[in-house]
Amino acid sequence: KMAVALLQGSSRGLGLQFCKYILSKHRKAMVIATCRAPDTGNQLRKLKGDYPNRVTILKLDVTREDEIKDVADAVKEQFGKLDLLINSSAMLHPSGKGETSLRDVSAEGFAKTLATNAVGPLVMAKYFAPLLLKGSGMFGHQHSAVLVNMTAKVGSISDNALGGWYSYRLSKAALNMATKNLSIELGHGRKKVVCISLHPGTVDTDLSRPHHKNVPKDKLFTPEYSVQCLMSIVENISMDKTGSFFAWDGSELPW
Amino acid sequence: KMAVALLQGSSRGLGLQFCKYILSKHRKAMVIATCRAPDTGNQLRKLKGDYPNRVTILKLDVTREDEIKDVADAVKEQFGKLDLLINSSAMLHPSGKGETSLRDVSAEGFAKTLATNAVGPLVMAKYFAPLLLKGSGMFGHQHSAVLVNMTAKVGSISDNALGGWYSYRLSKAALNMATKNLSIELGHGRKKVVCISLHPGTVDTDLSRPHHKNVPKDKLFTPEYSVQCLMSIVENISMDKTGSFFAWDGSELPW
Repeated sequence: KMAVALLQGSSRGLGLQFCKYILSKHRKAMVIATCRAPDTGNQLRKLKGDYPNRVTILKLDVTREDEIKDVADAVKEQFGKLDLLINSSAMLHPSGKGETSLRDVSAEGFAKTLATNAVGPLVMAKYFAPLLLKGSGMFGHQHSAVLVNMTAKVGSISDNALGGWYSYRLSKAALNMATKNLSIELGHGRKKVVCISLHPGTVDTDLSRPHHKNVPKDKLFTPEYSVQCLMSIVENISMDKTGSFFAWDGSELPW
Repeated sequence: KMAVALLQGSSRGLGLQFCKYILSKHRKAMVIATCRAPDTGNQLRKLKGDYPNRVTILKLDVTREDEIKDVADAVKEQFGKLDLLINSSAMLHPSGKGETSLRDVSAEGFAKTLATNAVGPLVMAKYFAPLLLKGSGMFGHQHSAVLVNMTAKVGSISDNALGGWYSYRLSKAALNMATKNLSIELGHGRKKVVCISLHPGTVDTDLSRPHHKNVPKDKLFTPEYSVQCLMSIVENISMDKTGSFFAWDGSELPW
C-alpha cells in the first residue's frame, strides 16, 4: 500500500525538512509538497529532481480558500486519500518582527498573521478532512490518518510568562483550539483522524533566526534534528493521544 | 474622586447591563458607552436620558482602528484616565449561527469573527492601556485599573468536549491569550492594570438566545444576574489574580 503525505508550507524550514525526511525514511510514501511560489522554491525543485516519481509540487497560498480547494480536488483525483497532513507555514508578523509591546500592535498586522497562522490551517482541515478520513493509517496505527498543526510553546496560554509577540501568540492559541476542536469532530465514527499540535523546539529557520541570539547552543536545533523528533511522535501516535499538544521530545504541553 | 468606566459594545446584552449596573451601584462613576450605531441604540439613549451628566455615548466599531483611536483621544481629553474597560462586543459568526461541523467553516466567516472577537479587543487594549495606567483604581483596589475581556467557557481549550462553533471558539481562545499577554505587559512597573477574562454563564441575550433551548431554567441567567455576579468579581479583584479566567460564580476556568 502506498502512503500519501501532504506537507503544506514546504519551500523551506521545517516544511521542507518534513518532505526530505518522509522521502528518505518512508520509501513507499508519495509526497505532496505545497508552497506559495513553486517557481522560486529551488530546494523543493531539487528534491523533485531527486525523487521525480514520488514528489508532487503544487501551488497553495494558505490564505486563498480557492487554491486550497483546487489542491484538495487534485489530491482526491490523483490519490483518493491522505495519510498525513502537516500544516507548517506560519509568520511571526508581516513586519518580520514580533511585537515587543502593545505599541507595536496593529489591526492589519494581527489580521494578516491570523490569516496565515490560524484561518489557513483550519480551512486546510475543512477541505482535506474527507481525504484524511479515507486514509489507510500509513503513519502510526489504529487510525486512518494524522493531522498535525505546527504551533509553538509560545502559543501555550498557561506557559506564557514573558508576554510580547501578540499576533504570533494569539494566532497559535487559536490554532491550538483548532487542533482540539478537530480532534473531536474527526475522532468519532468508524474512521478516525488523530489531530495534534506540535512544538518543534527552537529551530534554526528563517522565521526564528533573528530571535535566538540568547538560546544556548544545545537548545538550538537543526531542522533535521527537530523533524526527526517530531516524526517519531507522528509515527507512534495513537487515537488516545488525539487532541494533545506535544513538544519535540514527546512531553505534553499545557494549553 | 470620580471613577471612569468604558463599556465597549454597550447597545444591548451584557454591555448595556454593565452600563446600568455601574450607573446605579457606583453613584460617582462616569460611564462611557460605545457601540457601532449610537443612533439606533434606543436603550442606551434612554439611559442617557436618565443620567444625562454621567453617560457619554460614543460611536466605536471595534473593527476600525481609526475609530478606536478617536474614542481613546476623546476619553483622554475629557477624563484623562480610565478605571475600568470591559470589552463586550462579540459575534458567534457572521451568519448568526456557529458552525456545527467543518463543512460550515469559511475563511471569510472565520476572519470576520476574529476581527470582532479577537483583533478588536486587542486593539482596544493598545489605545486604552495608557489611560488605564493612569487610572485611580476606583474599581477594586491596589491597582490603577481593571481590563476585562468577555470571553466564554467555550473558549477554554482544556474544557472543550463538544467541538463545533469553530470561529467562535478559536477567536475566544485567541482573546484569552490576549488577556494573559496583557496581564504580563501591564503588570509591571509602579502602575498596574489587572487583566482578566470573564465567562458570563449562559445568559439570555440576542447572541445566545437561539442556542439555549436545552439549558435548564436555573442555568439560564438574566443579564441582570450575570452582570451582578461579574461585577462582584471586578470589584474585588486584586493584582495577584491578574491574567486569570473566571466564571460568573468566581470559579477559575482552565485555559
